[in-house]
Amino acid sequence: MFESSLSTGTEDPVFAMHRGGKISVRPAVDVTDRYGLAMAYTPGVARVCTAIAEAPELAAEYTWVSNTVAVVSDGSAVLGLGDIGPAASLPVMEGKACLFSEFGGLSAVPIVLSTTDTDQIVAAVEAIAPSFGGINLEDISSPRCFEIERRLREELSIPVFHDDQHGTAIVVLAALLNALGVVDKNLADTRIVTTGVGAAGIAVTDILLAAGARTVIGCDEGGAVHRERTGLSTAKAAYAERTNHACERGTADELLADADIFLGFSVPGAISAEGVSRMRDDAIVFALANPTPEIAPEDLPPGKVAVVATGRSDYPNQINNVLAFPGVFRGALDVRAWAITEGMKLAASRALAAVIAPDELSAEYIVPSVFNRDVAPLVATAVAEAAEQDGVARKTR
Amino acid sequence: MFESSLSTGTEDPVFAMHRGGKISVRPAVDVTDRYGLAMAYTPGVARVCTAIAEAPELAAEYTWVSNTVAVVSDGSAVLGLGDIGPAASLPVMEGKACLFSEFGGLSAVPIVLSTTDTDQIVAAVEAIAPSFGGINLEDISSPRCFEIERRLREELSIPVFHDDQHGTAIVVLAALLNALGVVDKNLADTRIVTTGVGAAGIAVTDILLAAGARTVIGCDEGGAVHRERTGLSTAKAAYAERTNHACERGTADELLADADIFLGFSVPGAISAEGVSRMRDDAIVFALANPTPEIAPEDLPPGKVAVVATGRSDYPNQINNVLAFPGVFRGALDVRAWAITEGMKLAASRALAAVIAPDELSAEYIVPSVFNRDVAPLVATAVAEAAEQDGVARKTR
Repeated sequence: MFESSLSTGTEDPVFAMHRGGKISVRPAVDVTDRYGLAMAYTPGVARVCTAIAEAPELAAEYTWVSNTVAVVSDGSAVLGLGDIGPAASLPVMEGKACLFSEFGGLSAVPIVLSTTDTDQIVAAVEAIAPSFGGINLEDISSPRCFEIERRLREELSIPVFHDDQHGTAIVVLAALLNALGVVDKNLADTRIVTTGVGAAGIAVTDILLAAGARTVIGCDEGGAVHRERTGLSTAKAAYAERTNHACERGTADELLADADIFLGFSVPGAISAEGVSRMRDDAIVFALANPTPEIAPEDLPPGKVAVVATGRSDYPNQINNVLAFPGVFRGALDVRAWAITEGMKLAASRALAAVIAPDELSAEYIVPSVFNRDVAPLVATAVAEAAEQDGVARKTR
Repeated sequence: MFESSLSTGTEDPVFAMHRGGKISVRPAVDVTDRYGLAMAYTPGVARVCTAIAEAPELAAEYTWVSNTVAVVSDGSAVLGLGDIGPAASLPVMEGKACLFSEFGGLSAVPIVLSTTDTDQIVAAVEAIAPSFGGINLEDISSPRCFEIERRLREELSIPVFHDDQHGTAIVVLAALLNALGVVDKNLADTRIVTTGVGAAGIAVTDILLAAGARTVIGCDEGGAVHRERTGLSTAKAAYAERTNHACERGTADELLADADIFLGFSVPGAISAEGVSRMRDDAIVFALANPTPEIAPEDLPPGKVAVVATGRSDYPNQINNVLAFPGVFRGALDVRAWAITEGMKLAASRALAAVIAPDELSAEYIVPSVFNRDVAPLVATAVAEAAEQDGVARKTR
């Protein structure tokens, strides 16, 4: 399609916007005269190098690292497109870099990898880590993403954050807290069914449990994940240990009976209107498969569901990670946190939820707009405070 | 020093200029409204990803790679400071990125490495290579730099260029060609003595031989390198095979007898005024140790030396790599060259020399100013043409 439009000279506007890439590296200083060159480059720069060699923490003051994030992907789980490889994933990573800059005031560098081998990815990211203040892992397929993140968090003393897991978790929890406010239910008392036990599904479950949820049942293609099920991956077996305590079995549709909350991180058709009709009244449905939700909002049974969210911008309540990652890294880097703790994620979630005042809250307004300029600073402040409380901050704000 | 000045609020201007770093990543597109976000990020970006997945060469059209260079260093041989490590080398790499942007219109990303292990460096750069259109190796100590460059050139299908070798070689040859014009000598007929048989010394020798030089004698701390000398490193043993055919021995000072050209890539004091006094008339002396030359221009014996060059901006004829690398990469990337050939380097050198018209040439003006805006485009054009001639260009200009 783009080829024919190219040849006619009327390029598709999406391709036209991407031509030449969506980001650039720019000088922040003037090197166009002898004075500037002597200060920013040789011989002046040697004094800054020497100072950092003697006191490495000065790199955070006198280089761009403390404002810079690597957006690292192997292109193995890109959007809904799957394993399309590093080159094809680059437009997403550049888009992410735009958002880091626009909403977080951060520099972000796409690093797409020629390997999908876990050991090689870990080694490469460790090797380049001194170049950056934080590592945002992106679109790396499950279950490798878990081991890669875990090992990098253990090895590196800068924040490592797999956005598909934790960015999603932060925004979903925020939206859910507000949805529960709309229906006046308490998270601890709810029955939650999810579909998709991959990166997003597991991370969301974990933040829900950390926030006080007690009954979460995750389903994959084989139905409910439970601790007596055989053939589970390591990640799912661990998931089974901390969820579905009653060892319930069945399909997601069956398990929706008496559920308060459905959270979908899977595929269109994962649940049906009939399944939803068995939920408790004032049900909450987050159908986050993108671009096509697990169930279309217009197909929900009338009168059953009080709050609906999707990943799409053409319905109310868009769940979009851009509400989290710029503020999370802004806050973490502002206090030079050497890690991102569970407390920082929970704080981000609560700050995001609190952007909407109680009297503004409604069934169609449980998350702020992705263009709300207050979001990232408020999230950043909460994250920085939590980093200080959790003892991972290297400096105070 | 900077600490006391910080505490008094009058920060040293060099440190003030470096505060927060010298570069940033900026969006080239607008993502601040729903239209822009939907085009640059989801859902629009998925179409660009899909197109690249189907035709990988489109990454060069629709991402930033074809305009982006990684400036890769392990911090092991930074300026005259030696092995100061990755964090302390970052101000130099950021400065380089400024120059790539300012003079080449390129985006450059500093990648400083936590390892100095050759295998690990090669593996890391190979892993991240799909993120970039070219790799500029920088300040990696000899002899590891040779193997690292060789292996990366073999493995990658993008330009790999160790600037300390080839950038220096291009500028030195250009300056030397013009210096020979001033004294009306022919390169093939000259006797050349160099000090320093590391990255710069070896690469300069190689480009001199490619340009027609026949008598080059390199000296290190042990005097002349020759093929009967024992205990030479692999790189120096290979160097001995292609230089000093008469197997001359002695110190640099001794070997300067009847030399036409001295090229220093070593340390202050490597040669003496007495040694220089033994050179042929109309001698050419490039004393490029920085910041203190092998011999200070004012210490040269009167009447012997016709043309002097240094690495410093406070003498005439500053040899500075910024005259080469922005144009070399600009030219290589403009035609999507998959390598940088010897022909491209020679073409860069000749184009750089030709920036100065014959009637402008003088003993004090053999290289253009580093701020001459014509240099990079002229070098780029010559490099791109040579890439096409050498069959390494993927597209025509």
